[in-house]
Amino acid sequence: MRYLTAGESHGPQLTAIIEGLPAQLEITSEQINKELKRRQGGHGRGRRMQIEKDTVAITAGVRHGKSLGSPVCLVVNNDDWKHWTNIMGIEPLGEEIDPEDIKRQITRPRPGHADLVGGMKYGHRDLRNVLERSSARETTVRVAVGAVAKQLLSELGISIVAHVTKIGGIEANLDLATGKTIEEIREIVEADPVYCLDSEASEKMVEAIDYAKKAGDTIGGVVEVIISGMPAGVGSYVHYDRKLDAKLAMAMMSINAFKGVEIGLGFEMANLFGSQVHDQISWSEEEGYTRDTNRLGGLEGGMSTGMPIVVRGVMKPIPTLYKPLQSVDIDTKEPFKASIERSDSCAVPAASVVAEAVIAWEIAQAVLDTFNGDKMDSLKAEIERHRAYTKGF
Amino acid sequence: MRYLTAGESHGPQLTAIIEGLPAQLEITSEQINKELKRRQGGHGRGRRMQIEKDTVAITAGVRHGKSLGSPVCLVVNNDDWKHWTNIMGIEPLGEEIDPEDIKRQITRPRPGHADLVGGMKYGHRDLRNVLERSSARETTVRVAVGAVAKQLLSELGISIVAHVTKIGGIEANLDLATGKTIEEIREIVEADPVYCLDSEASEKMVEAIDYAKKAGDTIGGVVEVIISGMPAGVGSYVHYDRKLDAKLAMAMMSINAFKGVEIGLGFEMANLFGSQVHDQISWSEEEGYTRDTNRLGGLEGGMSTGMPIVVRGVMKPIPTLYKPLQSVDIDTKEPFKASIERSDSCAVPAASVVAEAVIAWEIAQAVLDTFNGDKMDSLKAEIERHRAYTKGF
Amino acid sequence: MRYLTAGESHGPQLTAIIEGLPAQLEITSEQINKELKRRQGGHGRGRRMQIEKDTVAITAGVRHGKSLGSPVCLVVNNDDWKHWTNIMGIEPLGEEIDPEDIKRQITRPRPGHADLVGGMKYGHRDLRNVLERSSARETTVRVAVGAVAKQLLSELGISIVAHVTKIGGIEANLDLATGKTIEEIREIVEADPVYCLDSEASEKMVEAIDYAKKAGDTIGGVVEVIISGMPAGVGSYVHYDRKLDAKLAMAMMSINAFKGVEIGLGFEMANLFGSQVHDQISWSEEEGYTRDTNRLGGLEGGMSTGMPIVVRGVMKPIPTLYKPLQSVDIDTKEPFKASIERSDSCAVPAASVVAEAVIAWEIAQAVLDTFNGDKMDSLKAEIERHRAYTKGF
Amino acid sequence: MRYLTAGESHGPQLTAIIEGLPAQLEITSEQINKELKRRQGGHGRGRRMQIEKDTVAITAGVRHGKSLGSPVCLVVNNDDWKHWTNIMGIEPLGEEIDPEDIKRQITRPRPGHADLVGGMKYGHRDLRNVLERSSARETTVRVAVGAVAKQLLSELGISIVAHVTKIGGIEANLDLATGKTIEEIREIVEADPVYCLDSEASEKMVEAIDYAKKAGDTIGGVVEVIISGMPAGVGSYVHYDRKLDAKLAMAMMSINAFKGVEIGLGFEMANLFGSQVHDQISWSEEEGYTRDTNRLGGLEGGMSTGMPIVVRGVMKPIPTLYKPLQSVDIDTKEPFKASIERSDSCAVPAASVVAEAVIAWEIAQAVLDTFNGDKMDSLKAEIERHRAYTKGF
Repeated sequence: MRYLTAGESHGPQLTAIIEGLPAQLEITSEQINKELKRRQGGHGRGRRMQIEKDTVAITAGVRHGKSLGSPVCLVVNNDDWKHWTNIMGIEPLGEEIDPEDIKRQITRPRPGHADLVGGMKYGHRDLRNVLERSSARETTVRVAVGAVAKQLLSELGISIVAHVTKIGGIEANLDLATGKTIEEIREIVEADPVYCLDSEASEKMVEAIDYAKKAGDTIGGVVEVIISGMPAGVGSYVHYDRKLDAKLAMAMMSINAFKGVEIGLGFEMANLFGSQVHDQISWSEEEGYTRDTNRLGGLEGGMSTGMPIVVRGVMKPIPTLYKPLQSVDIDTKEPFKASIERSDSCAVPAASVVAEAVIAWEIAQAVLDTFNGDKMDSLKAEIERHRAYTKGF
Repeated sequence: MRYLTAGESHGPQLTAIIEGLPAQLEITSEQINKELKRRQGGHGRGRRMQIEKDTVAITAGVRHGKSLGSPVCLVVNNDDWKHWTNIMGIEPLGEEIDPEDIKRQITRPRPGHADLVGGMKYGHRDLRNVLERSSARETTVRVAVGAVAKQLLSELGISIVAHVTKIGGIEANLDLATGKTIEEIREIVEADPVYCLDSEASEKMVEAIDYAKKAGDTIGGVVEVIISGMPAGVGSYVHYDRKLDAKLAMAMMSINAFKGVEIGLGFEMANLFGSQVHDQISWSEEEGYTRDTNRLGGLEGGMSTGMPIVVRGVMKPIPTLYKPLQSVDIDTKEPFKASIERSDSCAVPAASVVAEAVIAWEIAQAVLDTFNGDKMDSLKAEIERHRAYTKGF
Repeated sequence: MRYLTAGESHGPQLTAIIEGLPAQLEITSEQINKELKRRQGGHGRGRRMQIEKDTVAITAGVRHGKSLGSPVCLVVNNDDWKHWTNIMGIEPLGEEIDPEDIKRQITRPRPGHADLVGGMKYGHRDLRNVLERSSARETTVRVAVGAVAKQLLSELGISIVAHVTKIGGIEANLDLATGKTIEEIREIVEADPVYCLDSEASEKMVEAIDYAKKAGDTIGGVVEVIISGMPAGVGSYVHYDRKLDAKLAMAMMSINAFKGVEIGLGFEMANLFGSQVHDQISWSEEEGYTRDTNRLGGLEGGMSTGMPIVVRGVMKPIPTLYKPLQSVDIDTKEPFKASIERSDSCAVPAASVVAEAVIAWEIAQAVLDTFNGDKMDSLKAEIERHRAYTKGF
Repeated sequence: MRYLTAGESHGPQLTAIIEGLPAQLEITSEQINKELKRRQGGHGRGRRMQIEKDTVAITAGVRHGKSLGSPVCLVVNNDDWKHWTNIMGIEPLGEEIDPEDIKRQITRPRPGHADLVGGMKYGHRDLRNVLERSSARETTVRVAVGAVAKQLLSELGISIVAHVTKIGGIEANLDLATGKTIEEIREIVEADPVYCLDSEASEKMVEAIDYAKKAGDTIGGVVEVIISGMPAGVGSYVHYDRKLDAKLAMAMMSINAFKGVEIGLGFEMANLFGSQVHDQISWSEEEGYTRDTNRLGGLEGGMSTGMPIVVRGVMKPIPTLYKPLQSVDIDTKEPFKASIERSDSCAVPAASVVAEAVIAWEIAQAVLDTFNGDKMDSLKAEIERHRAYTKGF
């Protein structure tokens, strides 16, 4: 299973093509739109989120609500495109137009963005040509793709949820997740203004966001994704590039503005003894093999153990600043205070939705790498057989 | 550029094939052996490191000390193989041998290892069939592969070094790296018993290792890899799976026992304001574009900025324990205290060598994804032209 | 460089996303539409070609006529979609609709089509779910993708053309291509009703097509693609899956209804002596290395030699028949005479346009695997340097 | 499943690593050696085939005759290496050795070989650096890899055989294959001097080879590979690069000196009517769906139909000639008559063994892309279920 996305932030539309989905999977635009809406929510978003209400159109690969096995195409139109047809026009400029007259050209790269290096790499003197694609706007279709992956996982008895565990130094109580089902966590998180499980911490996070906004600054945070119901043995230890943890790390780090990823106890393990870190193994006829704790986050030897997978990522404060940083104009080479393209003060809640989506994709892909994914009924049956087998192993 | 490795821990040999190296690269077994020796060093290693002195044999792709452009084959023989020819024999057992008589069969999975899930996945009732491959022994050839990648980088003016920044809760002073060249760092690190830059912290780390050993326990830690001399614009923002930071995360997390990875300020960014996180941009005729700080660790928008790349990984305490954990015998389903296969009390220094190797590989691969890598002279010339171009961009 | 396509034959649209194109490449919908029109032409096409005039909309990756380096999205709307919104609707059927009432359900697989096996693979009892994607309609966007590849090649001094060399047993005189430039060949071919260089043969081909049509039958043929201006050394002998000839074979065979591919003298070589097959090598200061003949079709050791690449593919007569073949109804298991979905009697001329497109793509991809493809100006310069170097080698 | 090979023709050894094989597959060196011996046989081979008796050593991934699921490493030592240690030495030349004194340097590229273009691509002035890898010697390990793939297929009830259908214009009677099982074909072919089913044609082929040898010339031919027992639905129509026929074409064309490939009636289809080309479909309770004929060679819509897969490839006369062709010395730019490195007059029988191997690999890989390939027992059970399902579809 693989996918490609296309689309500029102010272009006519975002598009994704997913190739390799099983046939007979229920897919509706309603499911996807629910996720797109969640991505646009969360305290701390800027004005653009109010302008646009993203909705998806499915243009291929689905018929009467079920996947065909053929590639699925997802389109999210940009409502704002009508105001950008000149600036972002596809066809060559007519002779009557002086390229210099095109508005909103950018020669001033923003620190912390792809602007400068992207301009060098692709030879763009108008850095808008970079930022239109490097914008987190692209994560809209990654969320749409993830919504399809989540639907697949759901039919296989695999649940996934993301929640915010830290914003601007305010940490949620992680123990609050313990003992809750994914569905219970989801219910709490979806009702919370910053998608946080811990209502006390949530209040402080909201305050921190408001403070940052007033100060013309931004703050980052940490999000956690939990997956339960995994069959054991997805991923493999036999070659480094088949390890599921490595793939999750890749996916999490690929999200715009993410700078770190950890699994289970993560970086805390550098402070602990081995006897505090590993999870003892038990077995019972009812449950098969279980771990008494889950410090390793559901992954051993690059494979799912059957315990919940727990993976966290850190998002830096978004670099688009009201409080400007110094940069250099690439035409004049003069220093300046970096310009502003509309901005949120904290995008961590939205990023948690993106994280959930990209991790859902990796999990779904890894499941399909292991099991025969041509059609849903045989896939479900095969996973059921595998679950019974591993239980009695 | 791609590679595959093969080999079991107590099999006859480890092998790697590297496909896609440029021609005319100087490669000698001496360079590679130096790295293999570093991997076997570091305070806290177990007895096996004394038994075996790993050396490489190059069996393809190199002639008279230079790469041919054809696949390079690297072989590391297991000195200990002669004692394992029965237990790990390749050919079918003769009829006169009762499979039950094969020694060292394992039905008791160790917590924190691939043993149990690997057995389920591949249908092995003798879990030795899993642990022989999931063993960190395999990192020997990954280090050999990395040594070749480092040689390639070196000829392109790109330097790389790893050092240990934390062991068992003892943290090195990271500021000590500031202002030092990669070569200066390497000199200090290579002379240190735990490959640490900070001699004061190093002493305490040695003590912590000795304490853990005495207590029958193990400790983990953090390693940092620094790359300098990168051309700007390696990696890309245009598609999520082309981001260099995502690839580095994948590589770091793929190392045995690694549970987290971060770039630049990493997880600390969740506690800071945007104005404290981003790096201002300057330009001068002599140096071209530079960043005044390097909090983002040399990567913006998934691309190298030209500043040093800084990436860290966390290694859990190795799970092979003298202080046993509970597990379950897969044949009897009875609980037991987990068995011991020979062990180190701390493998973090060795893991830093592995981290340097796998990151070197990813960087080299990303460089060759960007520039024409058929042969060294044109590759060097192309990168020189690119460096001049980005300087004056 | 890679691409994915999506879209069903009677769905709302066909879509392709191309990832990895260099920036600064001139791309207009006009160029692409020209190729789409050629694909819809040629003597022998059915009614659908008159109904639909395919045109492309570019929805991402291009700004003011130039590629951005970001993924390019191409959309071809189906004009006929309005008549198919019920039959091919995306969203689930409302409760008021009986799935049995959906028109144009297919339980009778056509011999020679994907219908039966596709139904088995993906679990479709309505075989329309298969044929909508397996239809050659998909080649529309492959032609659009190829048009972009051709534009890339054109800027690099590489020309490509396809022509029909055989239809229904009528063979064109292949010598007519000798001594002509690609542009001269194109001019003749575009004016010919069956895209054939040989006007005498062309007349007979037209007659053969008309005869087949009258007889309710179909005929196939052979198409040839010629590429000139190739730099030497694209592809590689060092690993089997990097050979350019292997990739061209894959691409040609992947076209709907193609059953064979050959390069240079191809299958005729089984009848000749080695001394009649290989091309002698000459050198002159003006031209560098040349071959006195081109029997090997521009490829030696899986690499371009710099001589024109010549590759042919054979298309079977299209299986949709007015003269029906026996098949079996999958519901009743009763034999029947295979049903007809609208049909052409000969699609070889159109297939030549598809062949040109898919070969152009492979060539472009192979060129970008060899040279740095971030932006057009450095790519052009690098290829110029390479050409000068190989000339004087 | 994937593999890499390494090794030069006169280097110390050839190596292959296969990654992704199921566990519990029976693998012995005996099976592999049988295929290596077949590759060295066949009338018309040169002296080297007498010098070397290739045998494989398995050095990883197999224990007590069964695959572990971990990568399998296959090594074929070059018996002749002892005579080449100076010429092909791995380590840098000592200072006392003048590089000019290295024997067997080659500045004279042979027409029809990779020599000249390979030298340009990788910057080799001694063209030995090219021919050592581009030599068909590498096919030895591809045959070893194929032997493992064949063993896998065999356990899944899939049989494969290759036979020679044409040499130097002498064509075998293809009808002789009809009605024979793969095993019956194999028995005849293995006993025949040119691996041909048709004993009459075989005699004439032997004469043609002898004639060519005497004339200092070479001849090529055509080989056919037949696979029976395929489950239906391997490969897919949903995306061009997933079509099984396209992959078979890639594999066949990737064999050294192969210039064409066709499936079923292949190029002959350009001369036939649609009604003569397609295979009618029948169904019976005992056999499920069958085709009354097999003109399409077991593939429809890029998928296996369950009928035997029939694929042919054409091999050019090998270019190493006793009857020399003109070429140019790359140092002096003077024309010369191309030099000889030891040669066979006809390698078609050996090439049929290679073709069988590479096609076996592609088929095995495609089967594992479709079904869960972690371990043999569940793979076998899944395919049995699939066979029963498709029969009653």
